[in-house]
Parts: sequence; C-alpha cells; structure tokens
Amino acid sequence: MKNSKETIILGIDPGTVAMGYGIIAVRGNQIQLISAGVLHLHKKDDHFLRLKEIFETVSQLIDTHLPDEFAIEEPFFGKNVQSMLKLGRAQGMAIAAALSRKLPVYGYSPRLIKQSITGKGSSSKEQVSIMLQRLLQFEEQPKLLDATDALGVALCHHFQTGKKMITNDSSIKNSNPIKKGNRNYSGWNAFVSDNPERLK
Amino acid sequence: MKNSKETIILGIDPGTVAMGYGIIAVRGNQIQLISAGVLHLHKKDDHFLRLKEIFETVSQLIDTHLPDEFAIEEPFFGKNVQSMLKLGRAQGMAIAAALSRKLPVYGYSPRLIKQSITGKGSSSKEQVSIMLQRLLQFEEQPKLLDATDALGVALCHHFQTGKKMITNDSSIKNSNPIKKGNRNYSGWNAFVSDNPERLK
Repeated sequence: MKNSKETIILGIDPGTVAMGYGIIAVRGNQIQLISAGVLHLHKKDDHFLRLKEIFETVSQLIDTHLPDEFAIEEPFFGKNVQSMLKLGRAQGMAIAAALSRKLPVYGYSPRLIKQSITGKGSSSKEQVSIMLQRLLQFEEQPKLLDATDALGVALCHHFQTGKKMITNDSSIKNSNPIKKGNRNYSGWNAFVSDNPERLK
Repeated sequence: MKNSKETIILGIDPGTVAMGYGIIAVRGNQIQLISAGVLHLHKKDDHFLRLKEIFETVSQLIDTHLPDEFAIEEPFFGKNVQSMLKLGRAQGMAIAAALSRKLPVYGYSPRLIKQSITGKGSSSKEQVSIMLQRLLQFEEQPKLLDATDALGVALCHHFQTGKKMITNDSSIKNSNPIKKGNRNYSGWNAFVSDNPERLK
C-alpha cells in the first residue's frame, strides 16, 4: 500500500541502444531504491520497433510502480543531427508514456544531474555511481550500474524539488529548477548537511 | 459508418513550431480528403507543453477519424543537433500516440514523398501542393496548404503500399518501401497510368 506522504520518482535515461530506468521512493528525508534496470534495444534492427518497446516498457513501469513524478535527462550535444533525431524520438516515447498517464514531466541537464549528486557538474560517471550507491545503499551490481544515469536523474529531481510538494496544477515542467528557484536543496552538499545520517 | 474496404491513412508532419496533419480515405482507386489542418505551437514557451499538445492532438485525431495506418515524414537533415533532438521528441509524440492506439507506423523520407506525388524527388513544395490539389480535388486554401506536407506523406504511403493490404502481423514498419519492394505503384507516374480519370 502506497504511503500518502511518499513520493515515487521515475527517472529515465533513454538512448537509441539502451534505456536505463530508476525508481526511488522519498518519504521525508528517507530515500529508498525501488527498482533500477536497463532495457537493451540493440538487438532490434527496426527503429520503430525500438520506439514501440520503449513506449511499452515505460508504460508498464508506470503502471507497476505508480510514480508520482517523471524525470528525464536532457542532453544538449550529440554526434550528429541524425543520431539526435533518433535520440529525440526515443526520449519522446518515454515522455509520451508519462504524459499518457498524466504524470508531471521534468527535464534536467547532465551537468545539473552530476552537480546535484556529487556537488560537481564535471564529475565522472564513476563518481556519480559511488555517490548513488552510498546514498541509495545498494551493493555494486552491473545491472544497477548500467542504470546509474536513470537513478541519477530521479535523485536529481528529488534534490531540486526537495521537500517541496508540487502543487502547480500544470502537469508539465520544462525546468532548470536552479534557475526557477523551486528547490529546497542546492544539491548533494546541502543534502548532506541536512542528512548526515545518510553518510556511513 | 466506415466501409470495411476503406483504408484511412493519417499523415503527420510534426515540427517544433507547427504540426501538419492530413487524413485521406482510400476505397479502391478512389482517394478522398477527409481532413487536413495545422496545429500551431509557437505560442507555447514550454517545450514539454508543446509535446503534450502534439500527443493529445494526434490522439484526438486518431480517436475521431479511426485511421487504419499512420505515416510520418522522416527528415535526414536539420540545422543543429539541439533542434534535431527537439524535432525528434515532437515526432516521438505523434508516433507514440499512434503506437498507443495500435496503429501500424510508416516513415518516408521527404525525397520519396515528393517523388511519389510528383514523380520527381527534387520537386518544389508548390509543385507538390498543385499535384495534391488535383489529386484530392480540393480548392486552394491557406489552411490546407499549410497541411500539404502531411497530406503528401499520407498519399505517399498509399502510393507505396498501393492496393496491397497490410497483412504483416508486425504493427510497425520502418520502411523505405521502394527498397523493400512492397508496393504496387511506383509513384505518381504509375498511379496516373492506372488512374487516368483522376487527372482533369
């Protein structure tokens, strides 16, 4: 039974070869890892079949875990225009699945995600992963490591919105919340100072 | 009441500023324009709000007109990677709406669309528009002209699949049907030779 004071966040890192997902539950200052994993798409030749699988998988994740909020990574650079079009479509599948379930959607840049988790926007993937493991108290597992970026964006969303409840009726946010100032935590450092018990 | 031998095709030309749509019904050699128009998105600042509007509009078009097949333009070039990511997301919204309604999805390049309609892949937008007007027998109207690309992709899909029924169980196609050879018409020229009565 879902606690009414609990907020469940679904983080998605959708690519054209694999899609990472991470689900966390936040209750007060407690953050719990609910599920994390990767959907591998590279065996499917057909671009539209991959898109279909992303849409269906995210829809199933939402129906299973009933998240309250949806967060996605927003990259700003890619190899070329064609790969970015395909990446945009892949992201579109995940966003559409969230929209079709009336979830509020939030986007965060990779730099802001790293900054939120480690305190530095230039952190390596490994540094982000170590912080995530410590914070979410999971043992290192390849499957979870693959889903690091997705857990990172979910956790970033929590840090950026903090304890503040989303009361805005508008169900969609295109946020760089740091700019909009709708956060209580300023990232990892602020979270640590408020939650010293999470660092062991 | 929908005729069981009728195929309704929804063509979509989704952009980040406007989305064109065109719906045609094909019964034997008869092609009928059902609806065409443009959804203007430029007044909405928020990228996610635009995406939401595309998803909802395409979903509504599907629920209203009950198309059997869905066709979308697949551009291969864009200004820059960031604009292509946004275009990909916008396209993703339309594709996801079709997938959520179990419609088969087909993609066509702009060149193939022009080639199918006018016989030349290098035709101008005006030439395509004139051919569409003649073929679909509509009077020139700004609203319809704006939806030219969407009607073009719907008609291209019809020319590429021809009279052949889609019997493949797989609901998704990433097709350049010319390469796959699953067509009966080789485009405008072949259609004209088979349908001289359509040219007045």
